[in-house]
Amino acid sequence: MKKRIYLAGPDVFLPNPAAAGERKKQLAAQYGFEGVFPLDATLNIQGLPLPQAGFAISDANENLMRTCHLIIANLTPFRGPSADVGTVYEVGFARALGLPVWGYTNTTDTFSDRTLAALGYPPQTDPASVSDPHGMHLEHFELTDNLMIDGGIHFSGGQFIKVSVPDNELFTNLQGFEECLKRIPSS
Amino acid sequence: MKKRIYLAGPDVFLPNPAAAGERKKQLAAQYGFEGVFPLDATLNIQGLPLPQAGFAISDANENLMRTCHLIIANLTPFRGPSADVGTVYEVGFARALGLPVWGYTNTTDTFSDRTLAALGYPPQTDPASVSDPHGMHLEHFELTDNLMIDGGIHFSGGQFIKVSVPDNELFTNLQGFEECLKRIPSS
Repeated sequence: MKKRIYLAGPDVFLPNPAAAGERKKQLAAQYGFEGVFPLDATLNIQGLPLPQAGFAISDANENLMRTCHLIIANLTPFRGPSADVGTVYEVGFARALGLPVWGYTNTTDTFSDRTLAALGYPPQTDPASVSDPHGMHLEHFELTDNLMIDGGIHFSGGQFIKVSVPDNELFTNLQGFEECLKRIPSS
Repeated sequence: MKKRIYLAGPDVFLPNPAAAGERKKQLAAQYGFEGVFPLDATLNIQGLPLPQAGFAISDANENLMRTCHLIIANLTPFRGPSADVGTVYEVGFARALGLPVWGYTNTTDTFSDRTLAALGYPPQTDPASVSDPHGMHLEHFELTDNLMIDGGIHFSGGQFIKVSVPDNELFTNLQGFEECLKRIPSS
């Protein structure tokens, strides 16, 4: 049986998310895996009030993850220094289920450097000594994102792949995704 | 036996995180619970290289969560329209462990409205029709944050409490936290 990989990421917010999912599923198939995209769930949310429609999608995604053997998460920074929170929720969820968690990000700078840049601060030799305007300290462990994300991937047996891509391909370039597929044992 | 509550949140980035944890633990005790703060883990990270120190904290936090009966997460927006990603990871993790997930946020506006504001866009009657500069659509379900967070809390049996606080108390005001404690069944 092919391993089922849950394809987590903000790819669902792309202009044509179904096509984006199809591209990832075809690439997964080339490496002997079955890709499972969040939009694969059979859902009938027509006519549901908005909050209930959102809950139905959440429930469907959680159930899809429970049918998978591992997860590849697109952890490219999304509207801030960190990954999309919906994806991060799924990374934590998959980790607690005991699934191997693989991640990729289409950036190569550290979490500290991205956070400093987002705050408009100059580079620092010790980012841990710096606070934001709310007095909240910066995390500095030379990791790719918040330590719970990097740590969860590490202890699950997965890897966190970092690649550099042109800015106009930030959410569409699949080089990091394919690198995960190359490294994941097929059985 | 008192229920053990994992106290997730960016409170660990406050100038005096130990004191912040102590305040929450004392408040939890007043309502008959045992509060468990991320910094409670016995850790010896002195001398460890930075990435390994980060991994050790991640491992300790995951293990602490496995000893708890439920979680209260501070989901106040952190350096962007969404909650702190470390906290969101823990919400997903706790949800997959089957724990009730309670959340609070010291803001009352919707995720869509915060995202529009962060992008510098005017209010929209249909935020779902809007894209960011990367062409990524906005999520719009009249929820408090990404649907995975609101949905996970909802299906776990918890509640997501929203309060409005003065801006200088954004990460210290515990009114929403205490409201969770009031509503959580003590047995």
